[in-house]
Amino acid sequence: MSEGVSVPPGSRPREGWFFEDYALGQRFGHATPRTITAGDAALYVALTGARQPAHCAEPVARALGHPACPVDDLLAFHVAFGKTVPDISYNAVANLGYAGLRFLEPVYAGDTLCAQSEVIGLRQNSSGTSGVVYVASRAINQDGRAVIEWARWVMVAKRDPSAPAPATVVPELPKEVAPGRLAVPAFLRPRALQASATGGARLWEDYEPGETIDHPGAVTVEEADHMLATRLYQNTARVHFDAFTARTGPFGKRLVYGGHVISLARALSHDGLENAFAIAAIHAGTHANPTFAGDTINARSVVTARDAIPGRDDVGALRVRLIAAKNVRLADLATPAPGAKDPAVVLDLDLTYLLPRR
Amino acid sequence: MSEGVSVPPGSRPREGWFFEDYALGQRFGHATPRTITAGDAALYVALTGARQPAHCAEPVARALGHPACPVDDLLAFHVAFGKTVPDISYNAVANLGYAGLRFLEPVYAGDTLCAQSEVIGLRQNSSGTSGVVYVASRAINQDGRAVIEWARWVMVAKRDPSAPAPATVVPELPKEVAPGRLAVPAFLRPRALQASATGGARLWEDYEPGETIDHPGAVTVEEADHMLATRLYQNTARVHFDAFTARTGPFGKRLVYGGHVISLARALSHDGLENAFAIAAIHAGTHANPTFAGDTINARSVVTARDAIPGRDDVGALRVRLIAAKNVRLADLATPAPGAKDPAVVLDLDLTYLLPRR
Amino acid sequence: MSEGVSVPPGSRPREGWFFEDYALGQRFGHATPRTITAGDAALYVALTGARQPAHCAEPVARALGHPACPVDDLLAFHVAFGKTVPDISYNAVANLGYAGLRFLEPVYAGDTLCAQSEVIGLRQNSSGTSGVVYVASRAINQDGRAVIEWARWVMVAKRDPSAPAPATVVPELPKEVAPGRLAVPAFLRPRALQASATGGARLWEDYEPGETIDHPGAVTVEEADHMLATRLYQNTARVHFDAFTARTGPFGKRLVYGGHVISLARALSHDGLENAFAIAAIHAGTHANPTFAGDTINARSVVTARDAIPGRDDVGALRVRLIAAKNVRLADLATPAPGAKDPAVVLDLDLTYLLPRR
Repeated sequence: MSEGVSVPPGSRPREGWFFEDYALGQRFGHATPRTITAGDAALYVALTGARQPAHCAEPVARALGHPACPVDDLLAFHVAFGKTVPDISYNAVANLGYAGLRFLEPVYAGDTLCAQSEVIGLRQNSSGTSGVVYVASRAINQDGRAVIEWARWVMVAKRDPSAPAPATVVPELPKEVAPGRLAVPAFLRPRALQASATGGARLWEDYEPGETIDHPGAVTVEEADHMLATRLYQNTARVHFDAFTARTGPFGKRLVYGGHVISLARALSHDGLENAFAIAAIHAGTHANPTFAGDTINARSVVTARDAIPGRDDVGALRVRLIAAKNVRLADLATPAPGAKDPAVVLDLDLTYLLPRR
Repeated sequence: MSEGVSVPPGSRPREGWFFEDYALGQRFGHATPRTITAGDAALYVALTGARQPAHCAEPVARALGHPACPVDDLLAFHVAFGKTVPDISYNAVANLGYAGLRFLEPVYAGDTLCAQSEVIGLRQNSSGTSGVVYVASRAINQDGRAVIEWARWVMVAKRDPSAPAPATVVPELPKEVAPGRLAVPAFLRPRALQASATGGARLWEDYEPGETIDHPGAVTVEEADHMLATRLYQNTARVHFDAFTARTGPFGKRLVYGGHVISLARALSHDGLENAFAIAAIHAGTHANPTFAGDTINARSVVTARDAIPGRDDVGALRVRLIAAKNVRLADLATPAPGAKDPAVVLDLDLTYLLPRR
Repeated sequence: MSEGVSVPPGSRPREGWFFEDYALGQRFGHATPRTITAGDAALYVALTGARQPAHCAEPVARALGHPACPVDDLLAFHVAFGKTVPDISYNAVANLGYAGLRFLEPVYAGDTLCAQSEVIGLRQNSSGTSGVVYVASRAINQDGRAVIEWARWVMVAKRDPSAPAPATVVPELPKEVAPGRLAVPAFLRPRALQASATGGARLWEDYEPGETIDHPGAVTVEEADHMLATRLYQNTARVHFDAFTARTGPFGKRLVYGGHVISLARALSHDGLENAFAIAAIHAGTHANPTFAGDTINARSVVTARDAIPGRDDVGALRVRLIAAKNVRLADLATPAPGAKDPAVVLDLDLTYLLPRR
């Protein structure tokens, strides 16, 4: 395929694209749009244990200014992300990272999401058998409006190791989403969120950078759970579903979709971040170690910054490292230095929540 | 906390309340209200196998006088009960019993439930390390109307064994809900329930006290099943979810939420009680033994009373002992004497159904 | 029971009907009608991974002329089929086959399905302990319109081996549904289906009889998965749910509902049959071998015919053998000759899809 062009709909090979198929500036309109329903939202609660009332109590959502409950930010993200998998990461050797993820508009039951991606960087590996593909992706609703945007980069296998390497282009990716670029709906009335509804009285001003919150719950992942979630998102990555093939693969078993771990950690984090009513941005994230069925997930939040949002004195941005660890007592876990790894840590996410201000 | 006051919203400690935190007359407005949707109702069917058409066939519900399908009584109960867990039973050593549970009004998709509780009794155990807390709880809908009420008592650990014991107050709890206190909607037209819809022709008059019904189905519980159900109800009790910690606990494994067992037994009971279109009351109940993933649940109903309902000649109250047994052929199980235990019996529930009269 | 009569509603014995209870011409109105909701559709996606946008993207469905998304054909079928189980196959020793299944009208969220069956054949086995029952069944919606029809035959145990054998009547069952009998809604605008939505550009003209498509995905079945699906369909066949009894049965474990395997194979077949937007008919089908939890399912489609549909130049019928195999690399599987068996093949289905024509 050539540079800067739209990939023709329906031209995807049945076994997916390989590294040498990508070219700078290529644009993908991903297939299988999806209407999100109250059924998806109910399943999301059952699969993750999410309890933020802005997403599951209509009177709370309406008090906040919404016409109805917006679905959980991560449900919308996983559905949109799932759309990109057949074109971007079907032959991925590894998902290397995310950057610049912004939630731009709420998604409601009844909205239909599709996803688009553009190749913004390519770098063949020195081995010549694979390369890194950088894409900028967007979720678009039925009105053509972008509701989520993000960049990610994945290592993709080559079909033919002798295929020539493309020119190396490594994009400048934002280290963070600046507070001024966080999207807050104009209609939002954050102060309508009540402690009686969320279960917590701490607002934006009550958190200080450096605070560590060990969330009290924990949840063991089952094969049936993570496959139900990943199918709900219509994510077709084979490593999550096929135990027969996995038996001879690198882990010997199915891998849990990293997004499911994000959702579990986010749901656990409710106890301690009760008024974090929305995710505004994910600055960066690493699935530091794989998660398998049988693993028990705990969540820790480390507050890293408290940012005012230009033009709003009623809502603030709280930046947090959300760490998920497996099969460990949190009390025994030292938070790894940023960028460092710990064998028990499966997720290290740098994200920003919205909280009401006093 | 002091007696007779409302607990301030958001004041809950992250690790929950302990026995010495409770005081007589305390009132809790539990957090995280929840709008129940068609998605929750579909999940309830998938998780339990419930088949009562009053809850899953709109034309049947409308013929009965409902504006739409009321959700299964137990779905509404589990959601409301789940709300009370963080404040009442998060540090429970054991759930000791229920009393006086009444379903007061139907709950429909779109209704939003929250829950409130009041401490009505306290009794420290002789060991000094825990005590029994008695609470009266209510589920409230978006119009402020009580839709379910119940009492329960739980044994709660003390944070500090040296904390002084409160004055012992053991409330008088009703042994039963009298027929005159059963709530039957004025609009209800019970005779519209047809054998063609329910699959059974036996109405209220056709059951006699003493009759034992061994329901023919059986269902094996899986870890994924019971966790999905318990998360759907946003019940955060850790014993159901955390296999890592459970490994060193009293059972060595996760415990199935007792409410899930009630729902499975109730669903199995459809074959034999086809026209029991609603639960009106639960007089008392015991989770006589724990249930674990891998256990196979059977259900037996023993009819204990047939009560007329004052002012209604079209609907009657059928009182039943609903017994769930595990890993046993029902033919081999002698019904334990009331109050007695059998190692195979995991649930012994004294409840009243509504059935059409001839 | 006697010939040619309607079985009285509610007359079903608690342990179900046995072979000697059936008589030619008997008509059953099966119990427990069910309103299908957006919750059921969401669960269907989560349980199967179905991705056909005609069923899960409202704008796509409306472009096709539908008022809303029709639910997946197989979801509607499984719900209707489940209704017939208590009366037809509760005491089935084996499900022997299907014939003449036609999808007559789309089913939408909000529709209520019930099912009816008529006994069209009986043949006692030479052993005298069981016999084959042939029934013609229909799913009926709330307006009394038939939306699906099919025939099936099952081997049913006798209660009393000494009960006299009925006269043998073996019905002539259609080998296939002729193209002229395929139901296509008059309002349908098949050419509105876009490659950008489905992910595939191949239309009806692009497939040739003899083409074999090995679909690239695979999915491992879990106990929790298949039981959730089978309960969602309110199918009460005990072999799927009761591990305790199964331990002493022929397989030593629970059996996966054959319909779940059909749905998994159909969902996998999306990659390669992206524009097969509906199933019009199932001509015949065999569950050639049992499927158990832990088995990994692959799907192969073999195109057997491309039929024009009388009166429509915008939509064509594509006849396909849909083969599901377990625990095998498809590359290692020779397609069995029609009617032949392979130990790895668990499903061999002869069905017709609708696809847009150019």
